[in-house]
Amino acid sequence: MGDRVGAIEAGGTKIVCAVGSDPADLEEVRFSTEDPASTIGRICEFFQSAGDIGAVGIGTFGPAGVDPAQPDTYGRILNTPKPGWKNSDLVTPLRESLGVPIHFDTDVNAAAFGEGKWGAAMGLHTFIYLTVGTGIGGGAIIGGRILHGALHPEIGHLRIPHNLQRDPFAGCCPFHGDCLEGLACGPAIEKRWGCDPRELPPDHEAWHLQAHYLGLAVANLSLTLSPQMIILGGGVMEQIQLFPLVRQELDQQLNGYLNPPEIVPPALGNRAGILGAVALAQQLIA
Amino acid sequence: MGDRVGAIEAGGTKIVCAVGSDPADLEEVRFSTEDPASTIGRICEFFQSAGDIGAVGIGTFGPAGVDPAQPDTYGRILNTPKPGWKNSDLVTPLRESLGVPIHFDTDVNAAAFGEGKWGAAMGLHTFIYLTVGTGIGGGAIIGGRILHGALHPEIGHLRIPHNLQRDPFAGCCPFHGDCLEGLACGPAIEKRWGCDPRELPPDHEAWHLQAHYLGLAVANLSLTLSPQMIILGGGVMEQIQLFPLVRQELDQQLNGYLNPPEIVPPALGNRAGILGAVALAQQLIA
Repeated sequence: MGDRVGAIEAGGTKIVCAVGSDPADLEEVRFSTEDPASTIGRICEFFQSAGDIGAVGIGTFGPAGVDPAQPDTYGRILNTPKPGWKNSDLVTPLRESLGVPIHFDTDVNAAAFGEGKWGAAMGLHTFIYLTVGTGIGGGAIIGGRILHGALHPEIGHLRIPHNLQRDPFAGCCPFHGDCLEGLACGPAIEKRWGCDPRELPPDHEAWHLQAHYLGLAVANLSLTLSPQMIILGGGVMEQIQLFPLVRQELDQQLNGYLNPPEIVPPALGNRAGILGAVALAQQLIA
Repeated sequence: MGDRVGAIEAGGTKIVCAVGSDPADLEEVRFSTEDPASTIGRICEFFQSAGDIGAVGIGTFGPAGVDPAQPDTYGRILNTPKPGWKNSDLVTPLRESLGVPIHFDTDVNAAAFGEGKWGAAMGLHTFIYLTVGTGIGGGAIIGGRILHGALHPEIGHLRIPHNLQRDPFAGCCPFHGDCLEGLACGPAIEKRWGCDPRELPPDHEAWHLQAHYLGLAVANLSLTLSPQMIILGGGVMEQIQLFPLVRQELDQQLNGYLNPPEIVPPALGNRAGILGAVALAQQLIA
């Protein structure tokens, strides 16, 4: 197959590797993320035994060096708190092992790219993928191209208004306390309410507060990037009652000043990342 | 001259028109902004009498229809509160009068483009121009291209934390109250402290509070767009004591999570907009 490629979704706890040419027909393996040497070794083994591939796309946890013009950092996980992974190089061993071109990007940029190719954002030129789970992160496609900038966005750490009367929880971000992630990631919900978020009923006040914070975040993203669509994915967004609430909060925040973008779940569900990595690889050989 | 072009900076209170091929050698006129028909008439007259030009670049107040793929709104001032100007078409009469290609964009996008071509951001690919004056607005260059998205950014209306103990002023934005513009535009400073901002001494608490709000804004812009540089222009930023204070606040807000972008004044001063319009026009005939 001319467009048979490899794809990697590298998360802090698990790795997904896939080979194929079509979203409906991929050979996949999953394993847990161990130290860099054995993890990368296992990834290389999988692709070596998987037959011919024309390229590899990688969507990784970050921060990550995604700019090929900066050879000191390109292809590496940068200043991560994950033990052993700081400055680890994912691209060089893969390139030496497989001899094919590689696209290295963040997990959320890959997910955004995947949703643009096969998902909710097909045909759009400017949109955002925000994941709300253990952490909060975002990727963006601007005018049809992935937004990198100096490094890549770190949308999870946006500063937003925090009304301490309504919500006395101080936030749980080790860097910023009550930034967006500190107030609205899964562990923040768990700490604030003292139970697993999945145990909270759909009409619980927790979800109104959560929608308030996400509404502020998507309002700021709308004002800054003027997106046509914002896709909200990740474990917390499996609470689908959040979507109408977030849209309502967004309308309130913008107050008619501009037309709000569409706020939707990922059409590819939790496969946006790995399928995005496939799409990024295919772009290299198109 | 092959690259002799026309340029327009259209503001809510004054219009600047220029003709020439080089920033150092422009013929310019300025007049106040009246109703659309007479204002556009005066613009056309100036260019008709100004000799051959190959193209015209326009940087205008907004909101503005900057997407040529949307013919119903392209070239128009959109939902402005300025009496008489809502839906007024700037591009069609100019095109019919002059018969040259026209680039129509926001004033802040033009200023960003100008700083990239001849100013503080020469050689950079991703940066932001934020103006802080009667209002607050921003334009961005992402990967070398102007950010438009669905319409264009409205960075002035970002939601940021507002500590009512420190600053009981409710904000003056008619849409959002205490958004960035509502807390940190020139009129907000005037209303909060009860005097013309230019009368406040450089070490006044007003400037620390101002730097706090601008620090929050540039932190959010840094986290969202990952810019290499943020240029802060406009009347309020003539208080140059703000620059070190804003850098300090930005460092505090990011708290080591990412490398902050450079925070600098516009190298082109208050000529960034009109020179950017020249650069945009020249790009059309390059």
